Amino acid sequence: MVTRTHPLSYFRKEKVTMNLNSKTKNMQYLRTSNRSAIIKHLVISGSASRVELSNNLGLTKMAISSIVSDLIAEGYVSEKGYLENKVQNSSGRKANALEVPKKRINAIGVLIRRHEVYCISMDIHGSIHAQFHEKLPENANNDYLIDLIFKLIDEILKQNSKLKYYGIGIASVGPVDINDRKILEPPKMREIRNLNIGDLLEERYQMPVFLDNDMNACAFAENLYGAGKFMKDIAYIGFSNGVGSGIIADGTILHGFEGFAAEIGHVSIAMDGPLCYCGRQGCAEVYTSILYLLQNTGVDSVESLLEILNRPVVPRYISESYTIFLKGVETVLTNIANIFDPEVIIIGDMALPFILPHLEDLEKRMNRLKFIQGFKDISVVSSHFKEKTPIVGSGAIVFKKIFTGQIDLSDKKQ
Amino acid sequence: MVTRTHPLSYFRKEKVTMNLNSKTKNMQYLRTSNRSAIIKHLVISGSASRVELSNNLGLTKMAISSIVSDLIAEGYVSEKGYLENKVQNSSGRKANALEVPKKRINAIGVLIRRHEVYCISMDIHGSIHAQFHEKLPENANNDYLIDLIFKLIDEILKQNSKLKYYGIGIASVGPVDINDRKILEPPKMREIRNLNIGDLLEERYQMPVFLDNDMNACAFAENLYGAGKFMKDIAYIGFSNGVGSGIIADGTILHGFEGFAAEIGHVSIAMDGPLCYCGRQGCAEVYTSILYLLQNTGVDSVESLLEILNRPVVPRYISESYTIFLKGVETVLTNIANIFDPEVIIIGDMALPFILPHLEDLEKRMNRLKFIQGFKDISVVSSHFKEKTPIVGSGAIVFKKIFTGQIDLSDKKQ
Repeated sequence: MVTRTHPLSYFRKEKVTMNLNSKTKNMQYLRTSNRSAIIKHLVISGSASRVELSNNLGLTKMAISSIVSDLIAEGYVSEKGYLENKVQNSSGRKANALEVPKKRINAIGVLIRRHEVYCISMDIHGSIHAQFHEKLPENANNDYLIDLIFKLIDEILKQNSKLKYYGIGIASVGPVDINDRKILEPPKMREIRNLNIGDLLEERYQMPVFLDNDMNACAFAENLYGAGKFMKDIAYIGFSNGVGSGIIADGTILHGFEGFAAEIGHVSIAMDGPLCYCGRQGCAEVYTSILYLLQNTGVDSVESLLEILNRPVVPRYISESYTIFLKGVETVLTNIANIFDPEVIIIGDMALPFILPHLEDLEKRMNRLKFIQGFKDISVVSSHFKEKTPIVGSGAIVFKKIFTGQIDLSDKKQ
Repeated sequence: MVTRTHPLSYFRKEKVTMNLNSKTKNMQYLRTSNRSAIIKHLVISGSASRVELSNNLGLTKMAISSIVSDLIAEGYVSEKGYLENKVQNSSGRKANALEVPKKRINAIGVLIRRHEVYCISMDIHGSIHAQFHEKLPENANNDYLIDLIFKLIDEILKQNSKLKYYGIGIASVGPVDINDRKILEPPKMREIRNLNIGDLLEERYQMPVFLDNDMNACAFAENLYGAGKFMKDIAYIGFSNGVGSGIIADGTILHGFEGFAAEIGHVSIAMDGPLCYCGRQGCAEVYTSILYLLQNTGVDSVESLLEILNRPVVPRYISESYTIFLKGVETVLTNIANIFDPEVIIIGDMALPFILPHLEDLEKRMNRLKFIQGFKDISVVSSHFKEKTPIVGSGAIVFKKIFTGQIDLSDKKQ
């Protein structure tokens, strides 16, 4: 029943979050924005003194002190003790280190894959303190999925009843409607389609719910806690049965007009190449997905293929297919470099074991082939959280919103 | 001499503009941000009443009135008279229409192409009221270029001595270093390279100077005044002797980490295709540039080729090359759709006459081929300003900075 009615069309996420897209700014915006910047700085750097916050964030010491006092009173920030060997403040006293206490600011993350669902409890530092996981049966439909997620979240909340949660992040196979928080019609996705998951979860749990696709969630995870920490321009590419990406450009995720950007697997790298299931010719996916690699080598599993590739002598038709796969990956990486000029390209997902042995070589070739030469090289690294990246990402969706002031902590009842 | 010394390394653009990247926000930021939003709204919409500003920008009527009073006192905004058939305000009086007076806020634009330099005077509404243009001789070097630009700008300022200028925008063939405002080493660019043009112009004219590449400038022009007006996600693609793009995603130009993003001409669309001069195989440019088209048809000019294509019978080798060109354009458009999901793709530059007759068909095919189906189609249109787009763009670089609050009008002496 839950999927057929949407009683909460009046209860939009605008009610519980700030609208940062407003063209003008008011005092409330200023306050939320500065609180968020302080929380973010403390989380990302681990700890900092008031003086360091003032120096790094460009606010006066007085302003910092005032905001920090509020945050301490509300329990979002605590004094860590005395910093050793660090800056002394002007009064000559040792500068107190501030931190965001562990498990003080928490989120629920839900990861929806084609065959399974994960549900986690995660704190703002990226630590996962509870995780559930269930398979999705072949005949799973909207009702089944929602009931399963309700069950898993209920269990999380029951087991962690003392923790305060500030939002639910849903990372799902795409396509998704980010604004309406709706799973659209992902291909090969059981019987699940056109599911207003955001409204349903928000109604039940009365907290902000954010939906994004799994690749963007991975980009958030790596940007906040992983291989793209402290960076503003990163590209995450997931090579798996399909190929997708999450792009953060100048600190902002690339969504496009309707949220369908960064479909890097369906960028054609061979305009006269073989037909992709999407209807185009020579999509990156046709060369660089696991499906392609297994199909062309005639091997039936990732494990078997890895084993064969490690033999002293590899059958020629297998090594040839593998070479084409690697050339495809190199083409995708160089395209990403010329399109986005990121600081780092982070590679993850199921095909990673086939790419890892050649990572250094791919990085070198990409940097030699990219269009603008003579400046800083672009790093190519493997994802920090490996297969856990999208799981961490589901929670990171919420913390990214906190860091950008789109969830106002002070609005939350303590 | 001018290019060898950089006496102004202390005089950085940070001195004259606000740093919007600061992680925290202060009252000055708030004020500049709201003033900018009002100026932008009045310019883009032509005129608006205080009530309309309040409704559209989300500030209280009192806040709007107060800021507008300041802006009127400073001459940035004027009362247009009474709006007919429009909203009345709460006191029952007719709401006065406000506007930004013509020629009140002006910029100088400089467009640097391989063979020529343009210099314009433009007002914030996009009107060009003076334009000079000179060819660059074969042996032009840094000194020559700078002396020429000084001469052209001096002439502009002399002829328009009563106008107030708020900045100089430079649109140049790339690559450029946007932050250091330096022209790097554009290929085939006379003897011009590693030119700190920003510092040199700022020293001489004592106003903020901004540099960007010509494709990004085109995107600004179309976004502020042309085919991408009122939109937040647009892609401008220039098909010419090379192929480049300017991407505006969520209202922000895509620069990448070092400013080298959006090199769409060097995205490979044929990983085993012919070698591009950049060292890669099958770059978009190899299929979709004017150079390619002329080379493959063996025709020596754009005019001749257009004439031949209009004949009742077109030689087969020419029509075949043309077909490959169009397939290349279709591939680029569909790639752009899947990478950026823009609201509109705007096509401009020298190859436009070859694309225009097929624009509608290309739009249809792209929308049928793009990955996510069943939602809003992406428009494909020709550039509003045609060959003038990069010229308008040079001025638009400055006005974009004003609209985003990075040039604070109130800091300017009247």
